[in-house]
Amino acid sequence: MTRIRVEGFTISLDGFGAGPHQDLNNPLGVGGTALHGWAMSTRTFQRNVFGTDGGQDGIDEDFAARGFQNIGAWILGRNMFGPVRGPWPDESWRGWWGENPVYHVPVFVLTHHARAPLVMEGGTTFHFVTDGIDAALARAREAAQGKDVRLGGGVSVIQQYLRQGLVDEMHIAISPVLLGAGERLFEGVDMRALGYECVQFVASEKATHVVLQRQGRNDA
Amino acid sequence: MTRIRVEGFTISLDGFGAGPHQDLNNPLGVGGTALHGWAMSTRTFQRNVFGTDGGQDGIDEDFAARGFQNIGAWILGRNMFGPVRGPWPDESWRGWWGENPVYHVPVFVLTHHARAPLVMEGGTTFHFVTDGIDAALARAREAAQGKDVRLGGGVSVIQQYLRQGLVDEMHIAISPVLLGAGERLFEGVDMRALGYECVQFVASEKATHVVLQRQGRNDA
Repeated sequence: MTRIRVEGFTISLDGFGAGPHQDLNNPLGVGGTALHGWAMSTRTFQRNVFGTDGGQDGIDEDFAARGFQNIGAWILGRNMFGPVRGPWPDESWRGWWGENPVYHVPVFVLTHHARAPLVMEGGTTFHFVTDGIDAALARAREAAQGKDVRLGGGVSVIQQYLRQGLVDEMHIAISPVLLGAGERLFEGVDMRALGYECVQFVASEKATHVVLQRQGRNDA
Repeated sequence: MTRIRVEGFTISLDGFGAGPHQDLNNPLGVGGTALHGWAMSTRTFQRNVFGTDGGQDGIDEDFAARGFQNIGAWILGRNMFGPVRGPWPDESWRGWWGENPVYHVPVFVLTHHARAPLVMEGGTTFHFVTDGIDAALARAREAAQGKDVRLGGGVSVIQQYLRQGLVDEMHIAISPVLLGAGERLFEGVDMRALGYECVQFVASEKATHVVLQRQGRNDA
């Protein structure tokens, strides 16, 4: 059965999932890159993102790896796909990840501005969804063919799915950095009232990893 | 030199330092007691709070113990002292801690309502300060006689001192619980702009412990 999962979403000690002033040079906002120190050195990220054979095993690697296991489709907010705002001026922006993106499955990008699907190398196709989060989820679920759907973010996309009770499981990493400002993951989302609880809590030297599940939804 | 320290202040995964609906039966708000699981079983808490010889050593104990080291005075918000709101109806409320409170030093309670000092057993005297946080700090600093001043909380008191740049060091514990609502420690406080950084990050099975310092203020 398809589950809706957030994986490897990292927040700062003060609760922010991205820094302020996101742009081409700061895709995660100012200071946002420091959030992901735990992930960068893992074997999974070295292989999937940087195309190298290096990287480390351990707690951080375990969580990086699980984020790619049994994923049949992704959903991304438009700002995760790129820095372009408003109507697409042309089709030149093809994502942050080069011609062979890290996904290797269909990716549904939430946007208010229509655009033709973008077929990349390695099995990734970006589909641009203009009719809302429910439509995106329905299409992602179908594309996943029984595997899970991973919600990539950003913060506002995750919040929208959380508030509708649609997220089955979240892996959150808490990094030892302060961002001071930005988008707060749990702003205006009452996780307790929504039925979530912490089912795993383990730390490396670089991050604390927590897994949150909706009660009664652990039906994988 | 006297330093102003926050010690053992615990927040939930979603960033709250206390649950909602604080009252006599829920001094930490609904769900707030679960925050402090890491502290309850430590040797320091067993001895200082419960008066027993038991308790465990380890990471949690190390942080519990440091919270009482070199403390010459405390500052508490009124809600930390008790559930009474508004003018004191009488002097019958003498704190949550019985006749021999855990402090054993002068404690300065911030309130809008004057009350005579309350001398307890074991060296604790509660002084009620009605002329604001600067006055409370000046009196606490003098009373501490060169030792440090510990800011006990709650959230709004800590925020007021943080915004004025008066806190030298904070030990924050992050517990594996969700509160969903309540008072968020870092709400409206830009820790990065204020010059704080994380200088220690270590976890037990029950909590992640972080130490934040203001840059250039590590002058102990």
